[in-house]
Amino acid sequence: MNTPGRIFLAEIHEQPGAIRSLLGNLDSFLAAGRACAEQAPAAVRLVGHGSSDAAASYGVYAFGLLPGWTALRDSISLSVYYGAELEFSRSVVVALSQSGRTPDVVSYVERARDRGALTIALTNDPGSALAACAELTLPLEAGEERSVAASKTFLNQLAALALLAGAAAGRGEELAEGLLRTAGLLEEAMAGLAAAVGPIATAFAYVGRMYVIGRGVEFGTAREIALKLTETCRVAAEPLTSTDLQHGPVAALDSMFPVWTIASPDETLPALVEAAARVRAAGATIVASGSAAAEVEGAAWTLPVPEAPLPLLSPLLSVVPGQLFAATLAEAKGLDPDRPERLTKVTLAR
Amino acid sequence: MNTPGRIFLAEIHEQPGAIRSLLGNLDSFLAAGRACAEQAPAAVRLVGHGSSDAAASYGVYAFGLLPGWTALRDSISLSVYYGAELEFSRSVVVALSQSGRTPDVVSYVERARDRGALTIALTNDPGSALAACAELTLPLEAGEERSVAASKTFLNQLAALALLAGAAAGRGEELAEGLLRTAGLLEEAMAGLAAAVGPIATAFAYVGRMYVIGRGVEFGTAREIALKLTETCRVAAEPLTSTDLQHGPVAALDSMFPVWTIASPDETLPALVEAAARVRAAGATIVASGSAAAEVEGAAWTLPVPEAPLPLLSPLLSVVPGQLFAATLAEAKGLDPDRPERLTKVTLAR
Repeated sequence: MNTPGRIFLAEIHEQPGAIRSLLGNLDSFLAAGRACAEQAPAAVRLVGHGSSDAAASYGVYAFGLLPGWTALRDSISLSVYYGAELEFSRSVVVALSQSGRTPDVVSYVERARDRGALTIALTNDPGSALAACAELTLPLEAGEERSVAASKTFLNQLAALALLAGAAAGRGEELAEGLLRTAGLLEEAMAGLAAAVGPIATAFAYVGRMYVIGRGVEFGTAREIALKLTETCRVAAEPLTSTDLQHGPVAALDSMFPVWTIASPDETLPALVEAAARVRAAGATIVASGSAAAEVEGAAWTLPVPEAPLPLLSPLLSVVPGQLFAATLAEAKGLDPDRPERLTKVTLAR
Repeated sequence: MNTPGRIFLAEIHEQPGAIRSLLGNLDSFLAAGRACAEQAPAAVRLVGHGSSDAAASYGVYAFGLLPGWTALRDSISLSVYYGAELEFSRSVVVALSQSGRTPDVVSYVERARDRGALTIALTNDPGSALAACAELTLPLEAGEERSVAASKTFLNQLAALALLAGAAAGRGEELAEGLLRTAGLLEEAMAGLAAAVGPIATAFAYVGRMYVIGRGVEFGTAREIALKLTETCRVAAEPLTSTDLQHGPVAALDSMFPVWTIASPDETLPALVEAAARVRAAGATIVASGSAAAEVEGAAWTLPVPEAPLPLLSPLLSVVPGQLFAATLAEAKGLDPDRPERLTKVTLAR
């Protein structure tokens, strides 16, 4: 019964339910949001590795756009290894770890709390070391994730960051309502998306390298899709902002180097569309995803998703075609996303 | 006389002189450092694209380790496109642009200054739009850079960030002395390094993808080397921290997917050495560079550089083998790093 990728694919389909489970803890998020607002943070410091770090990229926008706070993916090495003497007393720390066992994330939180930060753990395991050392714990409620390649954990990290940032801005209920509607939209779209990725995966069976581009709120999505393609399909897939692409990497493109674009209907769309035009001029194949996929001219493949109820929630929908594509391409290549080579579910490496 | 890559290679060799030119403006850096200290910044916001953004990654460590300030590579899209209402009045902005003409960097600085940030332009052109809109301008003094692929501009951005952060910490003279010694060490090592990269470039002529790994102060170096390989050699080279590598991308490695490692003798070295062991176990070829290259076991190639007078200055030496390797590999592949396809010296794309 161990069909390769069966678990990964099943967990991708469980995502609408995972979002709804998270919303069962709305009161905890509202309380944590009030605690953050009381801290009046000069900085929200987001820490995590792998998919959790991709979610942190999204958090920069959630906190920047909702309460209007400066958030950053903080350097763990600066504090934990180099022992830099940073000011933490006006900081909120949001630590992201599915397992709650990532060693240097735990070390970082211990240090930040000692130095006066309000520390919040976002984890799937409220009994973990991370939860024990943080002042507040917000359970991810994604349910047990058995595939090594993460999916529903990532989606719930996005949902949790949006909900926490919304609560900090006094808009928690509005975000919760938006997330509930997003779960419904995702549920309706899932079967169509799962069918649509098939022909692209067939065409991409021999692709060795790709770029995944997004900007603004979709940069974290680009990072997560690139990571899925790398770890489950062994494609060298690099995430880039649409602007990064034009500052060098566009020179490397050719017809065997396709580009996955994530187009959402917000203020960064013109930059994305402009970058896609340069990709096309370089002769590279374009996959256009996102709810504004139709705006990307000359795409060989389009994977539109429904428009999110709030622009900030777009990534919860736009990441899903990437997950499904990775699952399908891995299958086409005879790889097992549930157990990629050399990876384990909990990475204890520093 | 237009030998491909002649200008890029010449400019790499001009770097020791470029550092010395920068130091001619020490007084400006000391004054700017005092102005930063008076601002008592809650955040130092670094902005730039391409190589300038790689330098910004270094700036996070320079400001974190010298004055002990939180520095971040700020999101340009958050302010410029989305119009987020962030608090800038306790910020220092350091804007990096060789030409001083990058449109959204200029827009960002205008907005940040209006909102009360102390804005500093680091540019090769003190007559540029960026210099005109920033409160202070620190000339990079790299001399005219004619190759589209940047080299001396990047090195002087690192030097300038170290000097400014040192000045902010009341250690400007000490950093200036360290930079002067670094210029001398680089000058002595240059010919040996230029010779050493030749055989590696020959061996890598058919490589299509690489990872470049470094952590902490060397992550910016990894980003810059990866960018050089991408834009001048059309290799899909992705920069990763040693920890990122183990959270997914290690699964994609094989014998045709080499990894360039940057090993410097600081607190992050054990993590780098551990990651390199996993790379070797995956059967991938390792290039070990940096002054602690000998610590990386099982490297097929080593490119050691002299140890820097201060650990924070290591990247000014460790980036150079990567630059020279890119120049040599581009030549082996018949490409022209002075004028890579589809790139221009000044990128006006948003």
